[in-house]
Amino acid sequence: MKYLLTISYIGSNYCGFQKQNNAISVQQVLTEAAEKVIGFGSKITGCSRTDSGVHALGFKATVEHESINVPCDKLPIAFNSVLPDDISVISAVNVDDDFHPRYSCKAKEYHYLIFNGKLRDPFLSGRAYFYPKSLDVEKMNKGAAYLIGTHDFSSYMASGSSIADTVRTIFSCTVENENDIIKIKIKGNGFLYNMVRIIAGTLINVGEGRIKPADVKEITESKDRSKAGSTAPPYGLYLYSVEYQ
Amino acid sequence: MKYLLTISYIGSNYCGFQKQNNAISVQQVLTEAAEKVIGFGSKITGCSRTDSGVHALGFKATVEHESINVPCDKLPIAFNSVLPDDISVISAVNVDDDFHPRYSCKAKEYHYLIFNGKLRDPFLSGRAYFYPKSLDVEKMNKGAAYLIGTHDFSSYMASGSSIADTVRTIFSCTVENENDIIKIKIKGNGFLYNMVRIIAGTLINVGEGRIKPADVKEITESKDRSKAGSTAPPYGLYLYSVEYQ
Repeated sequence: MKYLLTISYIGSNYCGFQKQNNAISVQQVLTEAAEKVIGFGSKITGCSRTDSGVHALGFKATVEHESINVPCDKLPIAFNSVLPDDISVISAVNVDDDFHPRYSCKAKEYHYLIFNGKLRDPFLSGRAYFYPKSLDVEKMNKGAAYLIGTHDFSSYMASGSSIADTVRTIFSCTVENENDIIKIKIKGNGFLYNMVRIIAGTLINVGEGRIKPADVKEITESKDRSKAGSTAPPYGLYLYSVEYQ
Repeated sequence: MKYLLTISYIGSNYCGFQKQNNAISVQQVLTEAAEKVIGFGSKITGCSRTDSGVHALGFKATVEHESINVPCDKLPIAFNSVLPDDISVISAVNVDDDFHPRYSCKAKEYHYLIFNGKLRDPFLSGRAYFYPKSLDVEKMNKGAAYLIGTHDFSSYMASGSSIADTVRTIFSCTVENENDIIKIKIKGNGFLYNMVRIIAGTLINVGEGRIKPADVKEITESKDRSKAGSTAPPYGLYLYSVEYQ
């Protein structure tokens, strides 16, 4: 039996979703919770690795076990009763055995949050990138538009990554400002390693006026990591939603 | 010289504002910061004690020293460069020597946040009281209206408190709901020990239908702590603002 879970978590205390030696992952904590709720041998599979410290509002993972006795609609509450405060299961649906949370995925949406106030806000600490220098959101939004479409995104991939196909399709990318919180919303069919964080760093350069919005097109075409901005910190990044057919 | 600081802090890691032995207070951390920024002998005085774990958006405290060389408009950034992430100074203004942040205060506004969703939200953990049972906000708002005015509020004071005058004036008290976050906003000329948290517990009883809105009037008149609701947890409470003449 297989259920697809939607999970929300604060990534600060985890090395990312994927299980690792010598570090606590969200997958490990979820697996231990599943063993308590469903039974030994429960298997958790995620839609994405997510970097250390990255947050999730709508992460998707499947839980598998030969027999799941907890009714589907009671699974979230059962999981939450044994999960720590920084991880919560917010929904569960039954899926076919051949469903895979990563390979069946059609689109993912990430949000990157920049707190652009002049003074530090404790309530946004670890939840948004505090960047007090003035940023022109309209210019950032114009720059973001150049990312839409099917491109080779290797300029926005962490150097040292080894992946054969660096072509991805970005369906939408917008930048908005609400109460000094600048939100970059980006949706695509897949993302390279650190891609959203490097895009955030590049759009910050646009917002500061260090490069022009149209330079984003050239940066993409250059396929040169050194032309793009620096990698924005993980704690501003949220996996917002994952779509399946 | 004396400056009035507006301070925002997450109370989770502190025993409240007021300095205590064997526990870390916001006052202690601010005093240590002031000694680095202004000099040895800096004195910090707060507008209120605040309970352990209570948060603040607009706490007021004065900093005093015989000579303050940092310009007033640079004080917040100077403080923030040495303060931990969970405390931030958001403004500073020069005040007269006879100004006292507690005794000169005319009104304080507190907000109590209840997360009334069905499933736990990790991003609200420690920042709102998670109360998944259905609450009728309209009834809570009707009950809240009975608190407005000048009354003896001893029904809403932690038992064991010894204070001569238990009469306070509440200027406004409203309850609203936005995206399952129920916010109790209460403004008054002063508050007894645990008063807002006991009022929150009482209004939750109203929202659940265990008592009627008009019962709030009777609870106040009884001057009997046992008639009011339980003390809601500290992490839902925010000192929102403090007013001076």
